[in-house]
Amino acid sequence: MVPFDAKKLGDLMEEAGLDLLVANTRHNVRYLTGGYYFHFHAFATRLGRSQYLPFIGLPRRGFEDGFYIGRPDEQGQIDAEGLWITNRPVARGNTLGAAEAAVQAIRKLGMAEATIGFELPFLPADALLAIRQGLPHAKYTDATPILDGLRAVKTAAELAHLRTVYDRTAQAIQAAFASGMPGVTTAAMADRVRREMATRGLTFLWSFTCAGPSNLRAPSSALWRRGHVLHIDAGGEDRDYLADICRMGYLGNPSPLARDLLDACLEVQGRVRKHVRAGLPSDELFREGERAVREHRFASYGRFVAHGIGMVSHEQPTISPADSRPLESGMVLSIETQFIHPKVGHVKIEDAVAVTALGCEGLGDLGREWHVVPV
Amino acid sequence: MVPFDAKKLGDLMEEAGLDLLVANTRHNVRYLTGGYYFHFHAFATRLGRSQYLPFIGLPRRGFEDGFYIGRPDEQGQIDAEGLWITNRPVARGNTLGAAEAAVQAIRKLGMAEATIGFELPFLPADALLAIRQGLPHAKYTDATPILDGLRAVKTAAELAHLRTVYDRTAQAIQAAFASGMPGVTTAAMADRVRREMATRGLTFLWSFTCAGPSNLRAPSSALWRRGHVLHIDAGGEDRDYLADICRMGYLGNPSPLARDLLDACLEVQGRVRKHVRAGLPSDELFREGERAVREHRFASYGRFVAHGIGMVSHEQPTISPADSRPLESGMVLSIETQFIHPKVGHVKIEDAVAVTALGCEGLGDLGREWHVVPV
Repeated sequence: MVPFDAKKLGDLMEEAGLDLLVANTRHNVRYLTGGYYFHFHAFATRLGRSQYLPFIGLPRRGFEDGFYIGRPDEQGQIDAEGLWITNRPVARGNTLGAAEAAVQAIRKLGMAEATIGFELPFLPADALLAIRQGLPHAKYTDATPILDGLRAVKTAAELAHLRTVYDRTAQAIQAAFASGMPGVTTAAMADRVRREMATRGLTFLWSFTCAGPSNLRAPSSALWRRGHVLHIDAGGEDRDYLADICRMGYLGNPSPLARDLLDACLEVQGRVRKHVRAGLPSDELFREGERAVREHRFASYGRFVAHGIGMVSHEQPTISPADSRPLESGMVLSIETQFIHPKVGHVKIEDAVAVTALGCEGLGDLGREWHVVPV
Repeated sequence: MVPFDAKKLGDLMEEAGLDLLVANTRHNVRYLTGGYYFHFHAFATRLGRSQYLPFIGLPRRGFEDGFYIGRPDEQGQIDAEGLWITNRPVARGNTLGAAEAAVQAIRKLGMAEATIGFELPFLPADALLAIRQGLPHAKYTDATPILDGLRAVKTAAELAHLRTVYDRTAQAIQAAFASGMPGVTTAAMADRVRREMATRGLTFLWSFTCAGPSNLRAPSSALWRRGHVLHIDAGGEDRDYLADICRMGYLGNPSPLARDLLDACLEVQGRVRKHVRAGLPSDELFREGERAVREHRFASYGRFVAHGIGMVSHEQPTISPADSRPLESGMVLSIETQFIHPKVGHVKIEDAVAVTALGCEGLGDLGREWHVVPV
């Protein structure tokens, strides 16, 4: 059984004139296999003077003829976990070995002159050069937009998983805030986020930690002081599905101005959430967010951003004035509102919603109000 | 101040006929900057339909003319941490933006027709195509061997850091063994290793977990049962320096045969360690390991492997019959001995030594004997 929407992928490939799709990134390998990736290289591909490189090839004329190219030492895992692709040539363990095996597999499919889409911003350069040399009559295009489109609408199982990733990321941020104290560095706070994620089974991706009134968002030796805000804008993932959440903390009781700024964020977020529903053109959602910021008395400090999220940050759908395609049920949006005030610092709320037929469902909504650390 | 051995890099570049070195991997960016990498993308480069791509370019004629190409949003971190490279063009945030900025920076250096070494097994394909189009008269080669050679001998600071990475990895493995119990899955054991690494500030890379008498090394639903061995062969890293350690556990008292197999591993490892010293040709070390296995009564089950380690697993020096270059003080070797017995399973010890003038120093030597879990 093909673990993705085969009809949709076929349509996207046809529309793009693609005969063969070849994926190599960890997230798209997982998406197309239904979860599989060689555990040895899931967190570091580098080895010797090259790196691990798997390939999944899917011909439009029949995905059942597809191939998976891995290494000899991953066969045990494949046997244990199962893999729907049965055509599995084995490659020497580096980029050129994988490229060579891909050339052979594509030739075997009789597709040496086909139009082939690779993930060009992710495919190693030496592999592409070797493949082009081995298949000089093929046409090469970028498959990234097709995979981006394929993943845009999440299944119920994906949403259930994303819900736990969001919940755990929100909990990790709360736990990090709870460890705050006057004089802690923003680097120590980011490190705490990392540890709190790990104890919740998440892989830490990043943690912007911005102690007001400064605007330095990179974790550093800057101190979080009594009477100041701290924003934690952190990403965590589990099996390639990621959450991206920003929450606000305060050492002591938030000042009236700080309160007003966070209220402004929540007001904009609330107005935007009220508009979200399947069928709404993306550009209308964007305009509502922009309008909500513009109409606020803090407008000059404000900024509104929204984007799809799932396996990649900033994936489909695009939320911009230039995209009028309608939202669909099962899409997931990351919505961000921020006010950067010279006296208070960077006040920001970011969280996600899943689009439903009649509205939306918040993901990881824990802790959207102040996390007040008593001092 | 250039934070690496400038004379060595110059010599390696000259030997390879390289005018300009351009690095883009996280580990080599960190190596060449002395530790810097944009925190936002340290654990996930993907963003939108492309990925984050930094470049460091170093012209052989003078590294002080080198460039660092990053994104606008990393300037805060650069200002906070400092960066010895002062020529810092800023790129749009994707592979093609970085490629375009690299073309401009290389032109500005007057090196449009130079011989340029890129990390070809790691450079995104679309970036190479764009750079070749922008600099059609340059010559392109693979810089990976040069960077591999540059990193081969570790400084005192690198060794001090590696010592802690090895110690913490060995501790994490011990803590995972201590959580063992009859009927635990090998997947749960690997997950425990991941968590124990995280609490020690390490990034989990992998954990092979092989419960005897099976040879399946991938974490799975296989059970660790009373009276069976388990090997944990795990990798962890901190700021791109990694440890790779294998240790043995037993649920209950190890059988005499299991004891003999681990003793055999330790005996081979001990014989090899006794030979290690600066000046020893690598092939002699390899032959000593092979001989030690071959002379053992378990020879038919045995295998010996050794390789350099540091920022990459299997980096310089190469330990093989084909390489007679002498070991140098400050090189770090990962030494592995394994006996795969049909009745017991996969018994293996892997650990590392730093080469010194007169011998070697074990790294993370904790727990090389049985970790016996009482049942």
